[in-house]
Amino acid sequence: MKAFKKYLYVTTRNRREYMNITPEVEKCLRDSGIKEGLCLVNAMHITASVFINDNEKGLINDFDDWLEKLAPHEPTSHYRHNRTGEDNGDAHLKRQVMGREVVVAVSEGMLDFGPWEQIFYGEFDGRREKRIMVKIIGS
Amino acid sequence: MKAFKKYLYVTTRNRREYMNITPEVEKCLRDSGIKEGLCLVNAMHITASVFINDNEKGLINDFDDWLEKLAPHEPTSHYRHNRTGEDNGDAHLKRQVMGREVVVAVSEGMLDFGPWEQIFYGEFDGRREKRIMVKIIGS
Amino acid sequence: MKAFKKYLYVTTRNRREYMNITPEVEKCLRDSGIKEGLCLVNAMHITASVFINDNEKGLINDFDDWLEKLAPHEPTSHYRHNRTGEDNGDAHLKRQVMGREVVVAVSEGMLDFGPWEQIFYGEFDGRREKRIMVKIIGS
Repeated sequence: MKAFKKYLYVTTRNRREYMNITPEVEKCLRDSGIKEGLCLVNAMHITASVFINDNEKGLINDFDDWLEKLAPHEPTSHYRHNRTGEDNGDAHLKRQVMGREVVVAVSEGMLDFGPWEQIFYGEFDGRREKRIMVKIIGS
Repeated sequence: MKAFKKYLYVTTRNRREYMNITPEVEKCLRDSGIKEGLCLVNAMHITASVFINDNEKGLINDFDDWLEKLAPHEPTSHYRHNRTGEDNGDAHLKRQVMGREVVVAVSEGMLDFGPWEQIFYGEFDGRREKRIMVKIIGS
Repeated sequence: MKAFKKYLYVTTRNRREYMNITPEVEKCLRDSGIKEGLCLVNAMHITASVFINDNEKGLINDFDDWLEKLAPHEPTSHYRHNRTGEDNGDAHLKRQVMGREVVVAVSEGMLDFGPWEQIFYGEFDGRREKRIMVKIIGS
């Protein structure tokens, strides 16, 4: 069994931001030389998500509006977590809706995707450096 | 390490529908000959989910009502995504709540499940052919 | 390829409870002897979650309030599922928001975690014995 790992580093300009990281993950897969296996991609921070959905700008805005409705940033005093001095209580909740990780099938050296599947990093408390894990195991 | 892959094909009659696909996944596992490992099952379309929950009809209806409350289908003009000509903005959101994928332990040639765990395909924009990935790796 | 499996057993005192199970999962990893691979941790019951987030008491309370708002326990008659004699319809829904499972990278014999990642068991219908799966594969 082969194992490959790489951290991707991101710093967003905005508090909330959504980045298509599919090309970076594909590069990891090529570098790994793994042809058959599983590829795990996860946020290493607990105020961010990795998820698979559509690379369509309107939809990304819909996600952002919807998450803000489900877990609003303000009033920040609404969240007990923010009594620690943080203002990112909402970000921890948003991350649960969108998920921490995706596991993708690797077949014949490719991410075995449906026609519209793209991997996104969802940042909910950005403007500082964060890491994304890419771990691939297989043969 | 052995790897097995199969696509399952589904076409639902309704826009939203929930199907217990456990028997199909169990058949894949038998066909794979894998005794110890991990089994990934994921929707290959971004308006559908694979999730594990209870095979109880009332609960399935509860899920559907709840998802419709969290991300209503109408008014379709509510979603920016629908300006592309689609009417499935809600389906992309519902899929995030229910999840894209499940990863199941394989032990002694079986899906290593608790007493009530069943694998469901959740369709949120159906009435057309879609695919589900079953990828199993192990020995 | 090596495979390791262990069930963790938990019985909570309260209907809803959140437990940091990271030390137990780390012990499993040490016992497995696996250095490179993937570690799956999942609830084996469908009214509970395994998720990764912050070990901060205020945040845990925020999660609980928020889940109760998204899928209230009462009125129990709100859920068709409860017509079966159960009163845990809400617990099945809460579990979908928080997720069934996490998959964690194993690198150099360690859970390959960001600085704040901790694994939690989220119980939404407790006061009885339940199981958590830890399955590790790799080399």
